[in-house]
Amino acid sequence: MDLSIPVILGTARPSRQSEGVANAIVDLVKQRNLMTDLVDVRDYPLTGTGIPAPGTDLDGYRSIAAAADGFIIVAPEYNHGYPGELKLLLDTESQAYARKPVGLVTVSAGILGGARMAQSLRLVVSGLGMVPVAPALHVSEVGTAIDESGEFASPSMTEVAASVIDEVAWYARALKEARGA
Amino acid sequence: MDLSIPVILGTARPSRQSEGVANAIVDLVKQRNLMTDLVDVRDYPLTGTGIPAPGTDLDGYRSIAAAADGFIIVAPEYNHGYPGELKLLLDTESQAYARKPVGLVTVSAGILGGARMAQSLRLVVSGLGMVPVAPALHVSEVGTAIDESGEFASPSMTEVAASVIDEVAWYARALKEARGA
Amino acid sequence: MDLSIPVILGTARPSRQSEGVANAIVDLVKQRNLMTDLVDVRDYPLTGTGIPAPGTDLDGYRSIAAAADGFIIVAPEYNHGYPGELKLLLDTESQAYARKPVGLVTVSAGILGGARMAQSLRLVVSGLGMVPVAPALHVSEVGTAIDESGEFASPSMTEVAASVIDEVAWYARALKEARGA
Amino acid sequence: MDLSIPVILGTARPSRQSEGVANAIVDLVKQRNLMTDLVDVRDYPLTGTGIPAPGTDLDGYRSIAAAADGFIIVAPEYNHGYPGELKLLLDTESQAYARKPVGLVTVSAGILGGARMAQSLRLVVSGLGMVPVAPALHVSEVGTAIDESGEFASPSMTEVAASVIDEVAWYARALKEARGA
Repeated sequence: MDLSIPVILGTARPSRQSEGVANAIVDLVKQRNLMTDLVDVRDYPLTGTGIPAPGTDLDGYRSIAAAADGFIIVAPEYNHGYPGELKLLLDTESQAYARKPVGLVTVSAGILGGARMAQSLRLVVSGLGMVPVAPALHVSEVGTAIDESGEFASPSMTEVAASVIDEVAWYARALKEARGA
Repeated sequence: MDLSIPVILGTARPSRQSEGVANAIVDLVKQRNLMTDLVDVRDYPLTGTGIPAPGTDLDGYRSIAAAADGFIIVAPEYNHGYPGELKLLLDTESQAYARKPVGLVTVSAGILGGARMAQSLRLVVSGLGMVPVAPALHVSEVGTAIDESGEFASPSMTEVAASVIDEVAWYARALKEARGA
Repeated sequence: MDLSIPVILGTARPSRQSEGVANAIVDLVKQRNLMTDLVDVRDYPLTGTGIPAPGTDLDGYRSIAAAADGFIIVAPEYNHGYPGELKLLLDTESQAYARKPVGLVTVSAGILGGARMAQSLRLVVSGLGMVPVAPALHVSEVGTAIDESGEFASPSMTEVAASVIDEVAWYARALKEARGA
Repeated sequence: MDLSIPVILGTARPSRQSEGVANAIVDLVKQRNLMTDLVDVRDYPLTGTGIPAPGTDLDGYRSIAAAADGFIIVAPEYNHGYPGELKLLLDTESQAYARKPVGLVTVSAGILGGARMAQSLRLVVSGLGMVPVAPALHVSEVGTAIDESGEFASPSMTEVAASVIDEVAWYARALKEARGA
C-alpha cells in the first residue's frame, strides 16, 4: 500500500529555524518509502480566516490534504501557542482530515522544545477530525539541532522522529484500509 | 484612577459575527466609565509571524497595548482553537502585556460558546505575561445573541459580561497601583 | 469481530449524577452488539498515585483494560478539570491502553457540559497511548438529562452519544485488526 | 505586610521525588521572609471527590488555604496530567482561593520537567479562582535536581524558582491590599 504523508511547515517567520527540522523530517519520511511533500505555509499566505492573499492557491493545499493518508506538522512554539499562519492554513479545510493520523513535531529555541504548544495543537487537530498519535517530537535548542548534513545532530532526536513517523505510518495504513480509501 | 481597557476583536473572517459581541462589550465597558478602544484585527493584517502586510501600522497596536491597563479579547472558536489572525497580532508585542489582566469573551454558533478555545487562549495570554481573570463569557448561538439595539439579548449574558469586565477592572486597578504605573 | 468497549464511570462523589449517564451509555453500547462493562471508580479506591486502599482489586481493572478494544469515559467536570479519582485509576495501568480508541462523555450541571475538562482529559488519554476520537458528548444540565426510563431525555444527546460510540467502535475494529490482536 | 505563601506538595506516591523539590522551595520562600507551610497531600487522604479517609482533617487544609495570601504548587507530571490526589485536595475548597496568586513548580524524571501538565494545572487553578503567575519552574531529571544540602543543584533552577516565588509574592501583596484583607 502506497502511503502519502505530507509534512506541513507551520511558520512563515523570516528568521524561522523550523525549516531545517522540516527538511530533516521529509528525508526520514522518504527513507521509509513513503510519499511526501513539504507543505510550506509561506506558499499559502492568508491575512485572516478565509482571506487568502491575492494569487494564493488554496486548491493546491486542499488537493494535497485530500490525497494524504496522514500528516506530520512541524511548527515552533510562540508564546506557548501555535503560529497564527499555521492555524489559518489548517482552517481552510474541513473535510480532508477526517480519520487520518497526524504526528506533531514542535520546535523551540529553549529546552522545552515547544511541548506546551503541542498540547494546544493536539486539541486543534482533534477538532479538525484528525487522530494525533501519542508520540511527539519536541525539538529543543533548535539553533544547534540540525547538523551540516541536514540531519538531526542528536541520535535520540532521530530516534524519536522515527518513532513519530512510524506511528503515523502505522495508523495511516490501518485507517486507510478501514476507510476503504 | 483612569483605566484603559481596550477590547480586541480577534477575527477578520468576512462573515464574522463576533463584531456585534465586541461592540456590545465596548458599550458595557464605557458604561463603567472606563476608557476603551475597539482593536480590530482587520486593521493589522499579517500574513505570517512577523510579516505585516504593506501599510500595516503595528506601532499603533503597540502604543495601545502599552497604554492599556487591561484587555478584553473577543474571539470566535474555529476548530477548537483561536483564530490565526488573533495569534499573529498578539505575537507582535512582548513587553506591553506584563502584569496586566485580560478577560476572555469567546463566541460560537453552537451551544458551547467557544469554551474549548478559551482553554487554549488562556494559556497563550499567560505565556504573554498577562493575568487571565477567572470569569469568562462564552457566547453561544451568536446568530441570535445580540438584539437590534446592539445589546445582549439574554440578561444572563449581560450579567456575565459585566462580571468579566468588573473583574478585569478590579485587577487593572490593583495591578496598576502595584506596578507604580 | 467481537469488540469489548468498557465504560469507565469516573467519579466517586457521593452525590454523583454521572452514574445515570454512564448507565445510559452502557445501554447504547449493548444495543450495538458490543460487549461492555461498567467500570466504576468506586470499586477501585486509591488514596494517592500507586496507593490502593486495602482490599482494592487493581488486577481486576488491569484485566478489563487489557481485554478492551476501546473505551468510553464518562466523567463530570470539577473546577474545569477531571476528577482526581479518575486520574488515580487511569494511572494504575500503562501498557493496556496503547493504540486503542477512547470516547469522552463529559458531564456538568451547567450549560457547558464539561467541555473544558474534556480538553485536559483528551491530553491525558493521549499521554496514556490511547486515541481520543474526534466526536465527544458534553452532557449539560445533568439533573434533567436522563429521563425516568434511564435514557437521554434529549434525542440530540442520544444522537451524539451514538456517534461517539460508533466512532469508537469503528476505530476499535480498524486498530484491533492492525494490531493483529 | 506579612504574607503567607503555603507550598502544596501534590503527590503521595510512595517513591515520590518531588518532596525534595518542595522542601527546597519552602527554604527559598523562608529566605524571603515570607511565612509558609508545607502542605503535604499525604496528610489529607481522599478516596474520591468529597470522600475523605477516616480521620482526615480537611478543616486544617481549609484553614491554611483561607489564611494564605498566595500558593505554590509542587507536583509531578503523570501521563501528561496532574496527580489525582492533588486534584482531590484542591477540590475540597472553593472559596478560599479567590483572587490569590499561585506559582506552579512541575516535576518529571525526563527533560520536559512536567511542562505539559503545567498547562492543564494552570486551567484548574483558574477554574478555582486563583491567578496563575506567568513564570513557572519545570524541574527536569528530578533524580539529580536536588543536591545533598537540599538545594537545587543547578543555579539556573534556583534562579527560576526565585522568580516564581518573587512573582507570587508581588501579586500576593498587590491583591491582598486590593482585597482589603
